[in-house]
Amino acid sequence: MSSTPNDPRTPVTVLGLGAMGSALAGAFVRAGHPTTVWNRTPGKADPLVARGAVRADSVAEAVAASSLVIVCVVDYAAAREILDPAGPGLSGRVLVNLTSDTPERARSAAAWAAGHGIDYLDGSVMVPTPDIGEPGATLLYSGSRQAFETYEETLKVLGGQATYLGDDHAMAAVYDLALLGFFFPAMAGLVHGFALAGAEGVPATEFAPFTAAIAGILPPLAAGMARDLERGVFPGDQDNIVMEAAGIAHIIEASTDRGLNTEVLDAVKGLADRTIAAGHGKAGFVSIIEEIRKPSAKG
Amino acid sequence: MSSTPNDPRTPVTVLGLGAMGSALAGAFVRAGHPTTVWNRTPGKADPLVARGAVRADSVAEAVAASSLVIVCVVDYAAAREILDPAGPGLSGRVLVNLTSDTPERARSAAAWAAGHGIDYLDGSVMVPTPDIGEPGATLLYSGSRQAFETYEETLKVLGGQATYLGDDHAMAAVYDLALLGFFFPAMAGLVHGFALAGAEGVPATEFAPFTAAIAGILPPLAAGMARDLERGVFPGDQDNIVMEAAGIAHIIEASTDRGLNTEVLDAVKGLADRTIAAGHGKAGFVSIIEEIRKPSAKG
Ligand SMILES: NC(=O)c1ccc[n+]([C@@H]2O[C@H](COP(=O)([O-])OP(=O)(O)OC[C@H]3O[C@@H](n4cnc5c(N)ncnc54)[C@H](OP(=O)(O)O)[C@@H]3O)[C@@H](O)[C@H]2O)c1
Ligand SMILES: NC(=O)c1ccc[n+]([C@@H]2O[C@H](COP(=O)([O-])OP(=O)(O)OC[C@H]3O[C@@H](n4cnc5c(N)ncnc54)[C@H](OP(=O)(O)O)[C@@H]3O)[C@@H](O)[C@H]2O)c1
Repeated sequence: MSSTPNDPRTPVTVLGLGAMGSALAGAFVRAGHPTTVWNRTPGKADPLVARGAVRADSVAEAVAASSLVIVCVVDYAAAREILDPAGPGLSGRVLVNLTSDTPERARSAAAWAAGHGIDYLDGSVMVPTPDIGEPGATLLYSGSRQAFETYEETLKVLGGQATYLGDDHAMAAVYDLALLGFFFPAMAGLVHGFALAGAEGVPATEFAPFTAAIAGILPPLAAGMARDLERGVFPGDQDNIVMEAAGIAHIIEASTDRGLNTEVLDAVKGLADRTIAAGHGKAGFVSIIEEIRKPSAKG
Repeated sequence: MSSTPNDPRTPVTVLGLGAMGSALAGAFVRAGHPTTVWNRTPGKADPLVARGAVRADSVAEAVAASSLVIVCVVDYAAAREILDPAGPGLSGRVLVNLTSDTPERARSAAAWAAGHGIDYLDGSVMVPTPDIGEPGATLLYSGSRQAFETYEETLKVLGGQATYLGDDHAMAAVYDLALLGFFFPAMAGLVHGFALAGAEGVPATEFAPFTAAIAGILPPLAAGMARDLERGVFPGDQDNIVMEAAGIAHIIEASTDRGLNTEVLDAVKGLADRTIAAGHGKAGFVSIIEEIRKPSAKG
């Protein structure tokens, strides 16, 4: 990997100035890069222009301004709408797509890029906007190794933990969706926690600090799950799923008594109950993976 | 609060030697406390007896051995089965119930204890067994302030973050279930992440370290949610729920394509979709709380 320091003279173009695109462009501006920006709704460029970015009037103009072009919009359908007409102009440039979508669409974007002679890197942003530009912020990349190595230090302007996952363009999306598959249930769980504590009069700001204790035990638990998964055995001697299902039942009972929606917890309990019914009650929680590996009944 | 250092001569009794009860008793033994133990299935005491604990042949004998009695079993129904006959023997002693259950059952246990002149502290263990005895381990307590202050330093043998939540006996259970309402969806999300990454050939041990990046952003996001909840406004300028619902849809699509169960994610998406349908698409994720505050359709 290159260890050339970031050269702030490298021009950069950012297409898409929603919350995340604006944060990405803002980090480049802050780091001193000549930054060209474009957004479908042009007014969203105003705060960046005020800070020194250059507004392009068209995608073609934006693309022509830099050899490194970043796109970050709501999904790949939107990215394709923007990029399709610009394909020829992107030829010979590096395109980094930081839009989140499925591995399948990452692969088809890579095929499209290859067809236009575009050096294509697919990526995923794993942090919220306030963390963009921080040394600890993780962004994942996969696809063109040459593109990553050429611009690694420039990409680190967006987040110091710029991680290259190999030349399969879909890998960033695989990791992204697998991590979001953890993130969104956790976020829904946080909101449920606030609702349940709040129903008993606990102020949200008093409850919030305790969530850090739970968040802190998750990475070591994940590491333990990984070891169990690689060995293919799910010992429950320290935490068995019958005990855990009883705990989930208590949350559901207390939530229902307070008029709260329990659909997320019901779904977790369903996985646990079916794991127990399959004879794995003495196994650890990770054993629900066997039920997750079966398609949903409702299809 | 007392700051008397822990007196290792204080005798302690632990009733219930499942995974957690054994860890609690083990921490007392390690700290040098005379530790009396009892479990319905007596053989589970063997490893503790080998380390110096004393096995009681009956609950009555176990209770008679110490002024501080801890109980930790699967649920309050089990705790009542153990404790009911021992009520008179517990009179004048401190009973700390570290079994997890609902606030309602914590209150009725407190009423039962009051009827027998028992100084009752309700509690919840917020860490897995390997963390018991660690300075960073959080255990929550509520109920008798006198019991907590008298035994605070002894209780810190179980976990340095011994937190007293006030004299309402139900509060430890309220915090416990609200935090477990975060924990279990997060755990199910972790397993889903392993399943999705695994379906693309990513080894579990390679995926696991990335989960720490997500776990690390949850406490600041929870703090932001708490501020929004207290102000009653859910700005989505940095992360709006339409974008988030698109992300959840991508996980569901990619998971379904790989034959994985998506019931937990479907439930999260249902909350997000109904929030958008109610006109809050530009709000932040915490706005799903309005849907969580409505009972589940299936009741
Ligand atoms: N925000 C976060 O915290 C966060 C964190 C990690 C990853 N991400 C990812 O970053 C990406 C962008 O998210 P965001 O928060 O910036 O979303 P956002 O604030 O909702 O912005 C959406 C962007 O997509 C553009 N867009 C949508 N449809 C379009 C179309 N048909 N043609 C052209 N442009 C279109 C919008 O343009 P207009 O302004 O013209 O509507 C806007 O620039 C998503 O893939 C998301 O998953 C976001
Ligand atoms: N393990 C963890 O990681 C963890 C973490 C935080 C909190 N907790 C909480 O700690 C508590 C205990 O969990 P655990 O992991 O120790 O569970 P466990 O390993 O399944 O042990 C269950 C215990 O309950 C006893 N028990 C069950 N039914 C009984 C009955 N009718 N009469 C008498 N005893 C009965 C069992 O006795 P036998 O041995 O005779 O069956 C055993 O001692 C639960 O409330 C749990 O939520 C556990």
